[in-house]
Amino acid sequence: MKKHSFLILTILFVFLLVSGCAEHSADTGDDAGVDLSGVDGITPESAGLGNDILYQVSTLDALLQSVYDGIIPIEELETHGDFGIGTFDGLEGEMLALDGDYYQIKVDGLAYPVPGEMTTPFATVTFFETDESFGLEGPMNLTELEAFLDSKLPSENLFYAVRVEGNFSYMEARSVPKQEKPYPRLVDVVSTQAVFEFENISGTLVGFRAPDYVKGVNVPGYHIHFITRDRSAGGHVLDFELEDGDAAIDITRAFFMELPTSGDFYEVELGQDLQSDLERVEK
Amino acid sequence: MKKHSFLILTILFVFLLVSGCAEHSADTGDDAGVDLSGVDGITPESAGLGNDILYQVSTLDALLQSVYDGIIPIEELETHGDFGIGTFDGLEGEMLALDGDYYQIKVDGLAYPVPGEMTTPFATVTFFETDESFGLEGPMNLTELEAFLDSKLPSENLFYAVRVEGNFSYMEARSVPKQEKPYPRLVDVVSTQAVFEFENISGTLVGFRAPDYVKGVNVPGYHIHFITRDRSAGGHVLDFELEDGDAAIDITRAFFMELPTSGDFYEVELGQDLQSDLERVEK
Repeated sequence: MKKHSFLILTILFVFLLVSGCAEHSADTGDDAGVDLSGVDGITPESAGLGNDILYQVSTLDALLQSVYDGIIPIEELETHGDFGIGTFDGLEGEMLALDGDYYQIKVDGLAYPVPGEMTTPFATVTFFETDESFGLEGPMNLTELEAFLDSKLPSENLFYAVRVEGNFSYMEARSVPKQEKPYPRLVDVVSTQAVFEFENISGTLVGFRAPDYVKGVNVPGYHIHFITRDRSAGGHVLDFELEDGDAAIDITRAFFMELPTSGDFYEVELGQDLQSDLERVEK
Repeated sequence: MKKHSFLILTILFVFLLVSGCAEHSADTGDDAGVDLSGVDGITPESAGLGNDILYQVSTLDALLQSVYDGIIPIEELETHGDFGIGTFDGLEGEMLALDGDYYQIKVDGLAYPVPGEMTTPFATVTFFETDESFGLEGPMNLTELEAFLDSKLPSENLFYAVRVEGNFSYMEARSVPKQEKPYPRLVDVVSTQAVFEFENISGTLVGFRAPDYVKGVNVPGYHIHFITRDRSAGGHVLDFELEDGDAAIDITRAFFMELPTSGDFYEVELGQDLQSDLERVEK
């Protein structure tokens, strides 16, 4: 087990439950009167299906606008992928899935196993199969790694899963605390994020690269989480200094998105350009 | 069989084959060196799967920018839906699928059966199951019908398949001619479209409503094709005057998109805002 140290830089501010407002959010779409019972258990990775599918729950712009109620249990998400990232019901921490194990990185920076019945409001997963791999020679920060990977990809117009096994002289990651209703916007949640610094740490970057044309649906470009080699800690990556490592990419040429059938998603305004929110949330 | 008449308003200009340029387009991505053989035959509608999936081939913005080479044969498309719209390899006409029958509406305005081996560069299909239905009382043009349906939908943020059986005092529809390489942009292709006018015609509107946040991926709002009751003629709908009819909507809360694995798609610039192109192409 590798030794590592991490330091919480930002003190966590827990949002108090505003009890009088707690009921107004979750059921706004339930009166739609639509029977969707037949679509439970959608499993595109059924018999005869390839694994090159990026499976996504909900949309990024819904998450940016406080649609945090979990809609898909992790035990169902596992049927769509063994690798991926996301978050949890009430936006409680960062999700990371690697080699079939799902982790919840809470605001203490530690990685916890995820009960199958826990739900997610937003996640992207796939069954990772390496299509191409590259050795990485640092020093290389997050921006430089992204530029290097971009130079290796066959097209900017596909979806890619990215896995990097690396040794890092420095790693900065974050997680976010569980929210209470009425949910604040994500840009306000991240102002209360916990930021962790690691030094001389080995571990794995887990993430995706999405094409520009899915802006609003997912993060255009890279979205990457981190977990230590001993699977004990990690977070949403803010930056790092990579010494050396190995990158693998999985080209996922199909995209499957499952949307909420009730709740805040039905009412949220998704026609806006939230690019400025996104930049503040991601970096 | 209902009588109908139609009139070609616009003379078709056939693009001449520029033979020296014919080879430059199709294979630009083949040297990616990626083995995607395992993903052939992706069939998300496998055992245990609901039918509320909108299946799409490629992206709208790729089509707007001349990515017309067919990538999915119709016999495979049929496994993803019995209802839908699209176009064909080389952008040869308008596709319409209804009750499991696929039609190609060519520039003569007539609907032809589609051989299973014919391919599509862009299509959206689903297995239509009515979730809600409404009587329609005219007179109502395309814009008014869209506004009426919008007032009935449970959310602007889901995908819907829309089917209308109607009697129309007037119907204006179009088709586009087969293109040769180097392919012109779609906005230039539609300047050569054939437009058909029908009077006192009965038939079916077949289409979808997509949410705003998939701009670039599909047409935000409604995209509707038409076929006569006797399944003999139709096209991409430009406008109509509906006397009366019945509308049915199918809420499709999952979206599955399959992307090309080679060809022009790999190289096309998909980060642009093509809204002005889209408006000229659709209306």
